[in-house]
Amino acid sequence: MMEKELSSIFNTLALSESELNLIAKNFVKINFKKGDIVLRSNEEVKYQYYILEGCLRTFFIDKKGKEHTMQFAINDWWISDYIGYFSATKSVLTIECIENATLLRVTKEAVEKTYDSIPKIERFFRKKMERAFVSFQRRILSNLSQSAKERYINFTETYPNIEQHVKNYHIASYLGITTESLSRIRKEILSK
Amino acid sequence: MMEKELSSIFNTLALSESELNLIAKNFVKINFKKGDIVLRSNEEVKYQYYILEGCLRTFFIDKKGKEHTMQFAINDWWISDYIGYFSATKSVLTIECIENATLLRVTKEAVEKTYDSIPKIERFFRKKMERAFVSFQRRILSNLSQSAKERYINFTETYPNIEQHVKNYHIASYLGITTESLSRIRKEILSK
Repeated sequence: MMEKELSSIFNTLALSESELNLIAKNFVKINFKKGDIVLRSNEEVKYQYYILEGCLRTFFIDKKGKEHTMQFAINDWWISDYIGYFSATKSVLTIECIENATLLRVTKEAVEKTYDSIPKIERFFRKKMERAFVSFQRRILSNLSQSAKERYINFTETYPNIEQHVKNYHIASYLGITTESLSRIRKEILSK
Repeated sequence: MMEKELSSIFNTLALSESELNLIAKNFVKINFKKGDIVLRSNEEVKYQYYILEGCLRTFFIDKKGKEHTMQFAINDWWISDYIGYFSATKSVLTIECIENATLLRVTKEAVEKTYDSIPKIERFFRKKMERAFVSFQRRILSNLSQSAKERYINFTETYPNIEQHVKNYHIASYLGITTESLSRIRKEILSK
């Protein structure tokens, strides 16, 4: 029943039917409602999630109680607290559904077992990880060198069509600015 | 001639002699002097480097000409501009030798070829990448939630014994503070 979704997830790999069957055993489909919390901070991180549908965000709450949106994620993205997932420590991020979502959940153990039986899955995740690493490094550099307006334009390019799904304070906390600054930037861009 | 170094780099892998020979062909040993630039920004990124000896840093120069130290690296670390390396774009970072250094250089193409012939090398680099991703995410979170003093203490734990090798302004630009603030923090810690 899951083979169709999985062949679309791993569409670059040309997996055989027996390989798809083997992988399918490890994935569980779960539905979430808007506002649901998929993972809380300070929990064990057992899973990563593939987004079939919906929109999620990860955020971090600092000591002063301020929220920092780390990432948005839409369909065909993977999401987890990767610090906890890779280093077997408790989560520091919270994962929240901004919209109703359908996710495929898989444990780290299952993924690593698959690496032994289907090495091209290991390659698939290695490349995903390289791309994620690049995009996080780019984000650090853009925070260091770009104006809030440039970062906002970047955001709209990285996440096209996402603005109608997320609240202004989500975007502002992703950009590290206030919602007032965000409105000002939007007005500036629209008035051109 | 390189087999001894390589078996120490890949010491978790138990490589055969023929595998070591195969890998050795791809590595070139290079000596650098203190102050040498290993990679300039806006260049093609062909290589990653393994540090046999020495101390290096990567830094980014923002639009206002201000330097931001992204990373220090000492022996047994890998270093490159990984944005350029993985995404085949020009470098944005500069890699500088803070001390005389001996590096092993390898091209991306050679590494990826090795993945096909020796899959455990792919696993080795996948795990390295996961750890690097975790440490970069941790650094983002620590910048969001920790005081300069806490970040300085983290720095001394992440890079033990490195302080005698690097200049104060390197550390300050890594922590995102002024050299004056760094001196103040050091005095505070020493006076306890």
